[in-house]
Amino acid sequence: MDLKQIAFLGLGNLGTPIAENLLQAGYHLTVWNRTASRAKPLVDLGAKQTENLVDAITPGALVISVLADDAALEEVVSAGFLEKLGSGIHISMSTISPDTSRKLAGLHTAAGSSYVAAPIFARPEAVVAKVGNICISGDAKAREAVKPVLQNFVKGIYDFGEDPGAANVVKLLGNFMIGASIEMMAEAFTVAEKSGIGRQQIYEMLTQTLFAAPIFQNYGRIVANHAYEPVAFRLPLGLKDVNLTLQTATKVNVPMPIADLVRNRFISALAKGRDNLDWGALALGASDDAGM
Amino acid sequence: MDLKQIAFLGLGNLGTPIAENLLQAGYHLTVWNRTASRAKPLVDLGAKQTENLVDAITPGALVISVLADDAALEEVVSAGFLEKLGSGIHISMSTISPDTSRKLAGLHTAAGSSYVAAPIFARPEAVVAKVGNICISGDAKAREAVKPVLQNFVKGIYDFGEDPGAANVVKLLGNFMIGASIEMMAEAFTVAEKSGIGRQQIYEMLTQTLFAAPIFQNYGRIVANHAYEPVAFRLPLGLKDVNLTLQTATKVNVPMPIADLVRNRFISALAKGRDNLDWGALALGASDDAGM
Amino acid sequence: MDLKQIAFLGLGNLGTPIAENLLQAGYHLTVWNRTASRAKPLVDLGAKQTENLVDAITPGALVISVLADDAALEEVVSAGFLEKLGSGIHISMSTISPDTSRKLAGLHTAAGSSYVAAPIFARPEAVVAKVGNICISGDAKAREAVKPVLQNFVKGIYDFGEDPGAANVVKLLGNFMIGASIEMMAEAFTVAEKSGIGRQQIYEMLTQTLFAAPIFQNYGRIVANHAYEPVAFRLPLGLKDVNLTLQTATKVNVPMPIADLVRNRFISALAKGRDNLDWGALALGASDDAGM
Amino acid sequence: MDLKQIAFLGLGNLGTPIAENLLQAGYHLTVWNRTASRAKPLVDLGAKQTENLVDAITPGALVISVLADDAALEEVVSAGFLEKLGSGIHISMSTISPDTSRKLAGLHTAAGSSYVAAPIFARPEAVVAKVGNICISGDAKAREAVKPVLQNFVKGIYDFGEDPGAANVVKLLGNFMIGASIEMMAEAFTVAEKSGIGRQQIYEMLTQTLFAAPIFQNYGRIVANHAYEPVAFRLPLGLKDVNLTLQTATKVNVPMPIADLVRNRFISALAKGRDNLDWGALALGASDDAGM
Repeated sequence: MDLKQIAFLGLGNLGTPIAENLLQAGYHLTVWNRTASRAKPLVDLGAKQTENLVDAITPGALVISVLADDAALEEVVSAGFLEKLGSGIHISMSTISPDTSRKLAGLHTAAGSSYVAAPIFARPEAVVAKVGNICISGDAKAREAVKPVLQNFVKGIYDFGEDPGAANVVKLLGNFMIGASIEMMAEAFTVAEKSGIGRQQIYEMLTQTLFAAPIFQNYGRIVANHAYEPVAFRLPLGLKDVNLTLQTATKVNVPMPIADLVRNRFISALAKGRDNLDWGALALGASDDAGM
Repeated sequence: MDLKQIAFLGLGNLGTPIAENLLQAGYHLTVWNRTASRAKPLVDLGAKQTENLVDAITPGALVISVLADDAALEEVVSAGFLEKLGSGIHISMSTISPDTSRKLAGLHTAAGSSYVAAPIFARPEAVVAKVGNICISGDAKAREAVKPVLQNFVKGIYDFGEDPGAANVVKLLGNFMIGASIEMMAEAFTVAEKSGIGRQQIYEMLTQTLFAAPIFQNYGRIVANHAYEPVAFRLPLGLKDVNLTLQTATKVNVPMPIADLVRNRFISALAKGRDNLDWGALALGASDDAGM
Repeated sequence: MDLKQIAFLGLGNLGTPIAENLLQAGYHLTVWNRTASRAKPLVDLGAKQTENLVDAITPGALVISVLADDAALEEVVSAGFLEKLGSGIHISMSTISPDTSRKLAGLHTAAGSSYVAAPIFARPEAVVAKVGNICISGDAKAREAVKPVLQNFVKGIYDFGEDPGAANVVKLLGNFMIGASIEMMAEAFTVAEKSGIGRQQIYEMLTQTLFAAPIFQNYGRIVANHAYEPVAFRLPLGLKDVNLTLQTATKVNVPMPIADLVRNRFISALAKGRDNLDWGALALGASDDAGM
Repeated sequence: MDLKQIAFLGLGNLGTPIAENLLQAGYHLTVWNRTASRAKPLVDLGAKQTENLVDAITPGALVISVLADDAALEEVVSAGFLEKLGSGIHISMSTISPDTSRKLAGLHTAAGSSYVAAPIFARPEAVVAKVGNICISGDAKAREAVKPVLQNFVKGIYDFGEDPGAANVVKLLGNFMIGASIEMMAEAFTVAEKSGIGRQQIYEMLTQTLFAAPIFQNYGRIVANHAYEPVAFRLPLGLKDVNLTLQTATKVNVPMPIADLVRNRFISALAKGRDNLDWGALALGASDDAGM
């Protein structure tokens, strides 16, 4: 198995810097993207490019996919992908439903390939700086085989075992907790503001002390200043993720009332035409409710 | 003004280690507590003790109060306290309603005294280690005067200006955010658990990465393991605080839907006889809903 | 005991038509109201009027109070009222906290008087038409004694037994259910509207069939047409009532998530300057959320 | 077009009494059901039966379908149904997604057939008594053509115009309002119960007065007595419907917080093994929360 040969599918905000890191680490990449022009910077760094995604795949080697959603991934996998991959390994990094991972893993196994779910927690700049974190799950041998590859662009690798959906569950729950953190700050900062305390001032106090974690510091700054542009993660993607989270929870019969609330904030934001803002703009809901 | 003389009122889980720190720093303390026997360790360290709280006060000097709730504080202040304090300063550390602080500050001003709201974010062990954080607000001169005193037992002092209620607003909102964090972890960990992922495993991943803040690490461990004993902060006190938070928010017309949810978790916990557990036990609500 | 002599305290939107009905039925009324001028129409119908509320009371006779809130009622009762009433009966019709009823009942008993809680479900026009309904609770003998009086202005009398707070509990829960009905129609009609179905059309279908009850027909018309004026019951009174409902529920450890939601709709409406609208205007919250 | 010839597909709790009414009214029915044995009583009344659903259809005549869900209906329609129906009319009575109706209507139009969405509000006994109500929408000519057929088994026909999804939107919102009514009664009755007032007593008062509508009287009796058996509508079907309602609302960007709450009650009920109870058992959630 030649794990130096990688077909890299999907060159969005995250895919591109991941691919760059791998090229710099000496991997041979053949890249494919729906909008082919996005491949240019990588080709300049030495990547090959194909128009047909199947052509990017070397039998018995590696595929890394970083795609928009379940549908995009399923379409890619059904395009002759498995027949070509053979005994190779597919590292599936998209934020998708655990059940889609489970279904795809089954298809891979049937075709003699291996599937590793590997969603990443990182904003693009964190990928560049190699400080993101990744959750993996799936076939045991394949998980071991891909860890050295992943180490080229993340800081921490968290292994959630055999169930191919497990890593996706964790990714969705992590995103849920980010959304919930945004909402809780929105509620708190709005009360502070209307009580005569600066949003910035309470933000600083709380995120230097009890809530001194990256999520609160980064999103707290956005919420404190209503700075929903530039956009790192578009608001409709936040709705997509919380919908997947709720489906995942419903499947195992767990109510998630905070997730419902976050979901409603996203829906209301869309109703108000905020789809081009960062998902942090769910925080505007609390301000709206308070007549601000 | 002799700020080395301190009448210290209230020797609960937080009051006692604060008083110890001050004694060790060379302050002269006269202590009072409703249950007098709790003063023994401090007397052994050199504190004087009085049965009548007014006797503890030196005119023109300092009072520090660390009491259970609004009613306890109001009762203490109305017991001849202000007549005795004269031109001294009262550092009011209890977690109370901002409006109670505002009302008491007015009474102090009328009596020629000064009132500084100074609620602290710290568990008892953090006070011992002098790593807690304190929010202050109230009369400007008094705030400056008390900072050197506070520095003996906290790490950070956050100044929220003239409004005596402002520090209490921040304290309540901080506590709300802790409660909300517990609930969000409870929901997420329960989905993980029912999806076949260990509560401990998702806890570790999230609190080593995105949520690497003390609140998530400490309460997350409690929630992951359902370890609601020993009790650091009793559950009914959590309900008291979220009720104050909601009153504070209602006064400025801000809905706080996550606070409502946290409040309902506390109410349900009381209905199920969990009043002797730590307030982290609000997390059991998500497990109950999921039939665990 | 002369139950033909009635001191009638409180001449608001409900008090006035109740008093009129009693005058027409041959009762001797002495009326009192904080704003004395409101008594004029009743005086024209034969009522006496006093400036001092205690003067209105005949020892051993009847008092009917219809006041704005707990504080107004407590102030009235503490004004020498009980000393004058002696062995008489107080019919307390205000929408107040059950605990206030219980406390006042105790004071009446101690003074040799009787207290009957008797909150009424009726809009003013329903009082005129004698089609309202009343809940009563309190001392058994007194309850029996007052029923013939109440029959002069209501259609149904529902007896909830000895606990003086019981009738108030039912009144608050009934009001909660009205608020909840408004919110549910607001959500449903907004989805219909944005799906291309007229609010009026779905209103008619549902309230002619499954929901053919007065509450849905009357408030549904208001919600369907956003007709929040003229005002029958001001929005801030709706907030007052749902706050009392939640206090009542909290006391017996019952979460009421729909009541929380209705409460937040009221708070948000106040934040948006809707305090002069009918409480039906809580329905605007769903439209706001939907960007309408 | 021979509207006396009806292919009747789906003989569940509602389908069977509808078919009976039509037979009694002189229609010629050919019935089909997945579980063929359920057709026996109708055959005894004169219906023909086929094993293959397409055989039941007379070209240019009528089809009435009363199936379990979107998937069952889509499967039926794709089984050669449209090719056979020709210029006939399909009356689609299942409770399904508005978008499924819209999609199916398009397929019918393309095949030269007509589709009328016609979901019914009725329990089985109401169908027998011909007191149910039906909402219709779709092609104008077809709507007019089917009204005389529908009048044989319902009391009211409510016409929602050309959009084939409109009737389904109204049906889903009506079901949502029933679920919301159950939840509001559950909250209110639980507070009453824990305040010492009988569930039955408050039920009677409210449903004889303000809430004197069938929904509150019928479901209120179930909720008051926790009488969730026998089952008229199984709890998992309630979850299915509220999920469809939320999808419908999300599509037009309307948050429905009460629907979220009702949905969570269903999910929690499933987690607790209550899937064999009537959907009224969502009311147990409020009791559980209150530690009853």
